Amino acid sequence: MNYRTVFHTVGNILVIEGIIMLIPMLVALYYGESGALTGFAAAILMTAFSGFLLTRIDRRGRAPLARDRMAIVALSWISISLFGAIPYYVSGEIPIFAEAFFETMSGFTTTGITVFKDLETVSRSLLFWRSFTVWLGGMGVLVFMIAVLPRSGKGRSKSSAVSLMRGESSGPQNDKIVPRMQKSAVILYLIYAGLSVLNLIFLKAGGMNWFDAVLTMFGTAGTGGFNIHDQSIAYYGSEYITVVTAVFMFLFGVSYSLFFLVLTGKAAIAFRNPELRTYALLTGAASVAIALNIMGKYGSFLRALMNSSFAVTAMISSTGYIQENYDAWPGFSRIVLLLLMFCGGCSGSTACGIKLSRVIILARIVRTDLKKFLSPHSVTLIEYNGRPLKQETINGVHSFFIMYFAVFAVSVILVSINDFDMVTSISAVAAAINNVGCGFSMVGPNGSFSMFSRFSMIVLSFDMLAGRLEIFPMVMLFYPRTWSRY
Amino acid sequence: MNYRTVFHTVGNILVIEGIIMLIPMLVALYYGESGALTGFAAAILMTAFSGFLLTRIDRRGRAPLARDRMAIVALSWISISLFGAIPYYVSGEIPIFAEAFFETMSGFTTTGITVFKDLETVSRSLLFWRSFTVWLGGMGVLVFMIAVLPRSGKGRSKSSAVSLMRGESSGPQNDKIVPRMQKSAVILYLIYAGLSVLNLIFLKAGGMNWFDAVLTMFGTAGTGGFNIHDQSIAYYGSEYITVVTAVFMFLFGVSYSLFFLVLTGKAAIAFRNPELRTYALLTGAASVAIALNIMGKYGSFLRALMNSSFAVTAMISSTGYIQENYDAWPGFSRIVLLLLMFCGGCSGSTACGIKLSRVIILARIVRTDLKKFLSPHSVTLIEYNGRPLKQETINGVHSFFIMYFAVFAVSVILVSINDFDMVTSISAVAAAINNVGCGFSMVGPNGSFSMFSRFSMIVLSFDMLAGRLEIFPMVMLFYPRTWSRY
Repeated sequence: MNYRTVFHTVGNILVIEGIIMLIPMLVALYYGESGALTGFAAAILMTAFSGFLLTRIDRRGRAPLARDRMAIVALSWISISLFGAIPYYVSGEIPIFAEAFFETMSGFTTTGITVFKDLETVSRSLLFWRSFTVWLGGMGVLVFMIAVLPRSGKGRSKSSAVSLMRGESSGPQNDKIVPRMQKSAVILYLIYAGLSVLNLIFLKAGGMNWFDAVLTMFGTAGTGGFNIHDQSIAYYGSEYITVVTAVFMFLFGVSYSLFFLVLTGKAAIAFRNPELRTYALLTGAASVAIALNIMGKYGSFLRALMNSSFAVTAMISSTGYIQENYDAWPGFSRIVLLLLMFCGGCSGSTACGIKLSRVIILARIVRTDLKKFLSPHSVTLIEYNGRPLKQETINGVHSFFIMYFAVFAVSVILVSINDFDMVTSISAVAAAINNVGCGFSMVGPNGSFSMFSRFSMIVLSFDMLAGRLEIFPMVMLFYPRTWSRY
Repeated sequence: MNYRTVFHTVGNILVIEGIIMLIPMLVALYYGESGALTGFAAAILMTAFSGFLLTRIDRRGRAPLARDRMAIVALSWISISLFGAIPYYVSGEIPIFAEAFFETMSGFTTTGITVFKDLETVSRSLLFWRSFTVWLGGMGVLVFMIAVLPRSGKGRSKSSAVSLMRGESSGPQNDKIVPRMQKSAVILYLIYAGLSVLNLIFLKAGGMNWFDAVLTMFGTAGTGGFNIHDQSIAYYGSEYITVVTAVFMFLFGVSYSLFFLVLTGKAAIAFRNPELRTYALLTGAASVAIALNIMGKYGSFLRALMNSSFAVTAMISSTGYIQENYDAWPGFSRIVLLLLMFCGGCSGSTACGIKLSRVIILARIVRTDLKKFLSPHSVTLIEYNGRPLKQETINGVHSFFIMYFAVFAVSVILVSINDFDMVTSISAVAAAINNVGCGFSMVGPNGSFSMFSRFSMIVLSFDMLAGRLEIFPMVMLFYPRTWSRY
């Protein structure tokens, strides 16, 4: 690993974080929250200073290799979470640093798991920072996808692992929006910002106050869904807010490149996208199936459908906002929701999980094998979105699938040491690795993660990051050769 | 599909089943169980006659294709279960035919799930037939592995699906014991029979009566583990029986080809087998870890180790005998046992589950991807048991892994319609698809499968068969082209 370059880049990112933290500091100033104010002041100084020191390390001239970019991504996320945790800790509102780190990591990974027990007592500036980290995390993922990954493939096109990363981060066949990466990154940001503003307008129109509207939008846009009230979205008791949030959770789970196609009048192409179709179909089917399953509980089918579609979009988009206690729904509904947590939304969005494009490709791999078996001499190329897939892309999807389940299984074993019931252990890890933020049983709608041991919190933090960075960079950190300097 | 050949072959197998059923009929005669006697008489007549009629269909001269062999295997298992269910039904001891079919399928697939609520009231000849089906199922799997599969690959070496089957059924690198298939089948039978007799002798030495000893041996050898007493192995309250059963459950989970190597003085080679090493290591590690976790419950570490190793071998070998109520153990122990159900034993044994050889290969695929990523120009062949793996074998393992999880997920959704708790739905399917026979919560040591709906029983029957036949043949039955005649 090219340590100098890695540290130098991480330094730059920390300086930026330090500057960004001025915004929540102003919020603290506005609400006159002295404790939080000191917290942010301390955080800004420490972050900016540490960042500055790291930038003093003069990077080597040569461009960083793929592995360096991986390391940069992973270490950046860890360090911004470490420094971003300072306000919670210094303000004394999260007295244990490990928990403050957990909370920040949960934000930057757009997961939305919280250690706060009573949100109404948390100072507003910290609530703002908390939800802001989710929104920033969403942006970070876009950098990760567009800037870091494809470039990391330079001169490595023979490496299946790289295409694995590229494939995983923005769809196995990355529909390049505009040839030049930087330019496309800017476009993605504009779409992200535009959708965010649109969401904000709709929430305001529902009579939400500015503070709640902004924070709810942050949570929706980043598909992180930090609750700002203990009852989450149910707090507003407004069907309008429920529907609007459900719609935007769905939208933020759609690949952003498709929005660009729609904006440039290529809607027809966008709607032919197999992943979008699967996403819409799956969301619709699951919502209806669950609605029929819970109808008795809500009188009318429409009321049931509103609640089921909210829960479905919250799970599949990995946002994890809560409207109804879905854990009290019948077994069928619960199992479907659990499985949706794993499916995840579209690649190229801020949603997490396995991602539907991979699910589609895995299904096609099996279908091709059956074809080959029944008529061995037939030509059986696996096609996705009109193009045949490269073997390296297929290998990439395979490896992701294997690593994903390996990390999941090991994490469940480690978390189970807490001796909670199976559903709690399993769904806690599922909520973390899929960046959903809420699960079932003790980590369900009425539950909390605060009872987990310090050790479990570290495991879950790792899972949140592994899920957000699509496993590979995190697994790589455990491979000795990654750390060998060259 | 070559219907004539398929039906003809299934006919032959039914005739054989009819003849074999004379054995339990003699048992019924011996114990003077008139009801069961009528049941067997009726079953023998119907089975032999139907079989005879099918054999009248003159098979075409040409040798059946791979797909025909697949169909033969799947349809044979289904039809022997249909006819094997007659005694339970006619004798009136299982008044619902669907449940009788479920019980028989559970036997022939060496699963060991039962619908009987009070075993002490079941007539002995039916108990005998029940456990005998497990032992026969174990033999059937050997035919499946040795005779059907590799031959099905003839002239199809380019098809990854075939090697997928071969790979899955007797280890991704099928160590051919003796070049000629028939001969090696005979050797496997001798090893199976030899181990069975050895197991019987040890059980008798423990003071078990002949009836119990034979039935317990049947259950152990077939790694099916039908209980013959409601308390399962705990009924005997003998540490000797517990240890002996644990040891033999472990042995029957070892690839039989390794026993052959040992018998022919090639022990050194056998012990270098990566799957055997993993199997021994995993069993040992899990037993010790669980023992430490449950020590408090059992006073001494040794007592804890005895109980943990019994539970571990019961799960990993997919036998599912019960000695202690492991569902009352701490969360860590329960999660480890649940995951062991999926690992399964060694390929080339009567054990079920994913099989360790596949787990090893999946791990090596990931390691190779990491290597490729970190040094793209390094040659990275995936090696198993001293030989590099063919790409088609790797694809086979991949497809198995995907299909396995797809079948698992769909089944859990379907079973969850019963509206039982998550752990029940999930572990019921796990117990069926991995052919273990017992799970957690309502299907745990003190539970039963009798509360499942008729529909769920059909789903679980499918899973038992899919797990036993390593998924592919069952998935194939859903593919239209399979049914097109040629």
